Amino acid sequence: MLKVPEHQVAGRQAIDGKLGPLIDNSGHFYKPLQDDDERGTRELTFYHSFSSNTRIPHHIRRFFPVFHGTQLLKASDGSGLRPHLVLQDITSDHLNPSILDIKIGSRTWYPEASNDYIQNCFHRDKTTTTVSLGFRICGLQIYNESGFWKPGRKLVRNFTADDVRSVLRKFVSSNVGPEPDCCFADSVYGGCDGILERLLELKTWFEDQTMYHFCSCSVLLLFDKESFLRGKTPFAEVKLIDFAHVVDGNGVIDHNFLGGLCSFIKFVSQVLADSKGSTMEDKF
Amino acid sequence: MLKVPEHQVAGRQAIDGKLGPLIDNSGHFYKPLQDDDERGTRELTFYHSFSSNTRIPHHIRRFFPVFHGTQLLKASDGSGLRPHLVLQDITSDHLNPSILDIKIGSRTWYPEASNDYIQNCFHRDKTTTTVSLGFRICGLQIYNESGFWKPGRKLVRNFTADDVRSVLRKFVSSNVGPEPDCCFADSVYGGCDGILERLLELKTWFEDQTMYHFCSCSVLLLFDKESFLRGKTPFAEVKLIDFAHVVDGNGVIDHNFLGGLCSFIKFVSQVLADSKGSTMEDKF
Repeated sequence: MLKVPEHQVAGRQAIDGKLGPLIDNSGHFYKPLQDDDERGTRELTFYHSFSSNTRIPHHIRRFFPVFHGTQLLKASDGSGLRPHLVLQDITSDHLNPSILDIKIGSRTWYPEASNDYIQNCFHRDKTTTTVSLGFRICGLQIYNESGFWKPGRKLVRNFTADDVRSVLRKFVSSNVGPEPDCCFADSVYGGCDGILERLLELKTWFEDQTMYHFCSCSVLLLFDKESFLRGKTPFAEVKLIDFAHVVDGNGVIDHNFLGGLCSFIKFVSQVLADSKGSTMEDKF
Repeated sequence: MLKVPEHQVAGRQAIDGKLGPLIDNSGHFYKPLQDDDERGTRELTFYHSFSSNTRIPHHIRRFFPVFHGTQLLKASDGSGLRPHLVLQDITSDHLNPSILDIKIGSRTWYPEASNDYIQNCFHRDKTTTTVSLGFRICGLQIYNESGFWKPGRKLVRNFTADDVRSVLRKFVSSNVGPEPDCCFADSVYGGCDGILERLLELKTWFEDQTMYHFCSCSVLLLFDKESFLRGKTPFAEVKLIDFAHVVDGNGVIDHNFLGGLCSFIKFVSQVLADSKGSTMEDKF
């Protein structure tokens, strides 16, 4: 039984007769290959290359969804059979995951792309936080006692630097009101199993690897309050997704991804430091 | 007695009746403030801010030319008295310095600039190595037995990634022919006083500082073979120059500079590793 992913926060959705990804009950995520452009082929090429690449360290492979090949499936838009990438559904282990989808890099285009594509990306990059912060939030859902807070696309697209800081605080709070308590900051962002440590591991790899340039790729942060309260590990995860615009690194590091990742790391560090500061203040 | 700098490798030059920087014999570099745009004012504002900024660590201040205020001087274009920035002439201690001027960042414009300025920079960034490598060589001179090798601006502007690798090898070689020997690589790039160690110090600061964004700023590498052969220290130096496009960091790290710097560090590391590899091969 295929169904529309419940926890998709960004990207094309399989609703209203449109083409989009599907999931099943056994933890698979089916992403349709599109025939209107080269995206699908490029993403498939990347997964093939990455799966068989023996130079990827084990601790880095963990950041990527497992790839199970391709499969012909009935497409969600009713257009009949279509090849789909079969990937790990990274939300399937989580009951009520809070999710942030962050597109990394101060540039989402690449020199080899068409002029129209570059101009479109260039405009979007300048009018979002992509150029100023080196990343932008593409979508999110944050679970709290009254359900999910999932702001609309237009709202997310207009996020400022301060909105980003606020979202990063709400992500680790028990409340999503104007004064988030950041009560999970220390456990989710901090510590040796925390998100910050994972991001620093990624950073170290990006300082060195010159095989791939991850244009327009996202870092997905998942945090499950229920898992946390039940002592389950990992209750917080960092994954990379969306490889439709990965290009050959040609012996050069992905300075665009690395710069954006460092900027994002600084934002997370600041939320963590502020939350520690306020906890200290509470104590005195 | 003011004169035209002998070792200027990039930027506007005080020749043919044009406006450009001048030097004296006491180690000062005089950079004219231009009245046709905001560059001069912005650079002056930066030097004032930076000089009085108590949050700049001592080991970082060393990377910047010393600022001695401004002075009214006869401009090199014959237009009469004009205010000049009075800076440290960073080449004055060197007899025959080999110099690389590397503009850091995959983007040389900033969102607050005019549309025309952005479009000009965008075009230049795409048609040089700025976008692909995260930096571009703006100018260079390399000293060897037959004098200086100083390729013209047009040649430098068309440098590819492979040209950049070749220049980085020639910079630390006794010859500038097609097969540079890299015999100074270990001393100049490597070691605890070497250029790589200095660049890593800079990188650590850029991972943290959110005060300034150094748009269109250059890293200058200086290496003096004579000083090296005489055992003088430092015989290799790293300086930052050109602050006409420094803007407020607004609490965000300079991910554009940082990403480009990391890419440049990787290039230097590779030349160093290759030269060690070939030395090892020579031994066996």
